Amino acid sequence: MTYTLVLLRHGESEWNAKNLFTGWVDVDLTDKGRAEGARAGQQLKDAGILPDIVHTSLLRRAISTANLSLDAADRHWIPVKRDWRLNERHYGALQGKDKKQTLETYGEQQFMEWRRSYDTPPPVIDEGDEFSQAGDPRYDGLGDAMPGTECLKDVVKRMMPYWENDIQQDLRDGLTVLVAAHGNSLRALVKTLDGISDDDIAGLNIPTGMPLVYELDDDFAPTNPGGRYLDPEAARAAADAVANQGR
Amino acid sequence: MTYTLVLLRHGESEWNAKNLFTGWVDVDLTDKGRAEGARAGQQLKDAGILPDIVHTSLLRRAISTANLSLDAADRHWIPVKRDWRLNERHYGALQGKDKKQTLETYGEQQFMEWRRSYDTPPPVIDEGDEFSQAGDPRYDGLGDAMPGTECLKDVVKRMMPYWENDIQQDLRDGLTVLVAAHGNSLRALVKTLDGISDDDIAGLNIPTGMPLVYELDDDFAPTNPGGRYLDPEAARAAADAVANQGR
Repeated sequence: MTYTLVLLRHGESEWNAKNLFTGWVDVDLTDKGRAEGARAGQQLKDAGILPDIVHTSLLRRAISTANLSLDAADRHWIPVKRDWRLNERHYGALQGKDKKQTLETYGEQQFMEWRRSYDTPPPVIDEGDEFSQAGDPRYDGLGDAMPGTECLKDVVKRMMPYWENDIQQDLRDGLTVLVAAHGNSLRALVKTLDGISDDDIAGLNIPTGMPLVYELDDDFAPTNPGGRYLDPEAARAAADAVANQGR
Repeated sequence: MTYTLVLLRHGESEWNAKNLFTGWVDVDLTDKGRAEGARAGQQLKDAGILPDIVHTSLLRRAISTANLSLDAADRHWIPVKRDWRLNERHYGALQGKDKKQTLETYGEQQFMEWRRSYDTPPPVIDEGDEFSQAGDPRYDGLGDAMPGTECLKDVVKRMMPYWENDIQQDLRDGLTVLVAAHGNSLRALVKTLDGISDDDIAGLNIPTGMPLVYELDDDFAPTNPGGRYLDPEAARAAADAVANQGR
């Protein structure tokens, strides 16, 4: 018995396009992002990889990407689960800031530390900041778990219980699982799946809107380490572009 | 304690526009239908009626209407439940048939009996018919419950367990519930809520894309019988138009 897990980063968002740090700010997809969502679904359909259940974050760009891709794959009717643990990394006080400007203001070293170090979070966002999610009803139940900033290590920590308890259970039930989420929550998941070190995860970029298919054994170890993009060439080109953001 | 239940019939579908009997055929919304979905969400937002959970059928036109309306209401992140029991009435052998042509072929009496009698279903659809749902994976679990045709009485019968077990439970939990469904599954629900007789339900039409808000007491009896449309004038005009289909 092997399990099939499909990871899908949301399509281009309005703030991807504007090159702003987004984090938990709930921005919409661009038209290009919507087209990416639909294309991802068409790729799944063409490959005969049909999700039986979808897990999404609580953010519009992942939810819409899931809706659009499942509609295109004729799987719009499958059960849906949503959880904040699949949200993008909370970008703290950088949320809403321009990436290029942040790079110029703070310099390459600090910029890359915030973007890519495993355990250095940006400064905590002020609750009164216009880009804070304090008071957002979708996070009412979080209490002390509500982050004001996160590094990737924090994302791994909060994502793990969801992976182990919720997603693994669906896989054990024999379901093909689609996870529609974000650059950093998916990096956290891939780090776990592929056993990537804290240092090496910095070099891993996940492109938007490209289904990444893992086949897992009974212990949830990939039989195809690194997974498989349904369109490998496009995925490689897109990942390179992500790596160059802020330049 | 009163409960808040919002009923929403999907926006105009491609087959509403073409005046074909649809039933369980999984047609898409038109652009007008998509706009109706978004407008319904805007109305909910303006009225401050914010769904905490959404229930949909397994059909694209209801699912997309739910997605579009919740996105417009900033409630895209709420939990989702889907169930075949909220599907449109199965229209049997009439699925895919032109309403006007059916009226001309079979005459006013037979036509109205199929459309509006409480307990006369159309002929059963053949499993080999291009508009049959036999073999559709979303209905794999139904077994003998899978209909080949339905009258409204059949819809009431299969909808009731879902209303009593699933929707009522969410209301009891204090959640504002949105049900995104279909002309006849919602007529079945309204018949139950308002205690409408088998004869009188024939005269009740539910317009597309208009949130219908019920306030219910502890016994799930409406404190506002008949419910309340957020835009009553538009709802009345639209309901009249539905009544005249096939003319």
